[in-house]
Amino acid sequence: MSNYVIIVAGGKGLRMGSDIPKQFLPVGNKPVLMRTISRFHEYDKSINIILVLPKEQQAYWKELCDKYHFDEEYTLTDGGDTRFQSSKNGLMMIPDGEEGLVGIHDGVRPFVSISTIARCYDTAEDTYAAIPVMPVTDTLRYIDKQGGGKNVLRSDYRVVQTPQVFDIALARQAFQVEYQPCFTDDASVVESLGCQVAMVEGNRENIKITTPFDLKIAEALIKE
Amino acid sequence: MSNYVIIVAGGKGLRMGSDIPKQFLPVGNKPVLMRTISRFHEYDKSINIILVLPKEQQAYWKELCDKYHFDEEYTLTDGGDTRFQSSKNGLMMIPDGEEGLVGIHDGVRPFVSISTIARCYDTAEDTYAAIPVMPVTDTLRYIDKQGGGKNVLRSDYRVVQTPQVFDIALARQAFQVEYQPCFTDDASVVESLGCQVAMVEGNRENIKITTPFDLKIAEALIKE
Repeated sequence: MSNYVIIVAGGKGLRMGSDIPKQFLPVGNKPVLMRTISRFHEYDKSINIILVLPKEQQAYWKELCDKYHFDEEYTLTDGGDTRFQSSKNGLMMIPDGEEGLVGIHDGVRPFVSISTIARCYDTAEDTYAAIPVMPVTDTLRYIDKQGGGKNVLRSDYRVVQTPQVFDIALARQAFQVEYQPCFTDDASVVESLGCQVAMVEGNRENIKITTPFDLKIAEALIKE
Repeated sequence: MSNYVIIVAGGKGLRMGSDIPKQFLPVGNKPVLMRTISRFHEYDKSINIILVLPKEQQAYWKELCDKYHFDEEYTLTDGGDTRFQSSKNGLMMIPDGEEGLVGIHDGVRPFVSISTIARCYDTAEDTYAAIPVMPVTDTLRYIDKQGGGKNVLRSDYRVVQTPQVFDIALARQAFQVEYQPCFTDDASVVESLGCQVAMVEGNRENIKITTPFDLKIAEALIKE
């Protein structure tokens, strides 16, 4: 039995004029994506890491790895046009017949705690599917089709993080369905089979770095 | 016609052993609440500021003002047991017959931008009620009564910030109702009259400082 994690790094391409995707930007002098990979090795030295990266970003990533002398082990595969396809590409890298758990994690979440990772894998061992969630701290408003709004009770909602961890066979089966717009994350793909997904506690620092504001927060977290 | 803003500072009391409420903690060497008050004076030097502070915190606040030589003008009144009551206490400090707009703002949101404040007041002039909102950036999950969950489309939701700005007469009328648990913010009180509330764009930095994590973000925002 082996455990896997698929680290999905999407972001805009590296076409001329576009910004460098956030996963490549250094935070505390180390690119975000390297921090994310290292975090899973900290959790489990022998975990199998599959990195999903858009084809046009791979040369740049390899340059970065040379520059930063980053030599941690992982398997690389190409990203797809959607998150769904990228996760699916990652799953296809797991050898046939392999048993165990696979996490799917956002490449731009380098601050996931070891205990969050452990809670997800430990729980998924029993439940086949586990995701980390956090309480909603903001006032939340539902917007109706007419553009009007109505506050909802934030205690009825949770913020969903990653890694989302599944039994390998279950994840493989789930990702054979056709893509649907209601697939808002990897867990929703598994749920489309009718499976229950267990919720465990995430960690507040486990932010998704997607905006300049997030990068500022990331720098602050590193400096601690 | 005069404009007002009620700045509501709640937080736990200053009883022995409890933490100092976040509004009193220094960020970049100036207590959060002073930054919040200054921000509204930056928007409009002549705005009438009403500060709502729990009675047991007022002596400590005055010490802080001396220590930091904080001499900006405001009217002080006592906090209530609920946010609803605190806002209501603030409204009661507006002289009878006064016409204009009143914003209600969280004391622990010092990073509201001048343009967010302006958008709220400018829009409320036309619509009688305006609140700043932001897109939801996280995956969001609805939790049902059985504790099960189902992801929802985050594009159907907004995060609600402050200041929430209302016509003074409208706000007075709204806060005469009995407190209801569905009052998740001040706008929901006004909506209970059947009024529409206009949504304008907030700003991402306009965070509510309630946890140690938020304080770290705040320090990072100041250092910029």
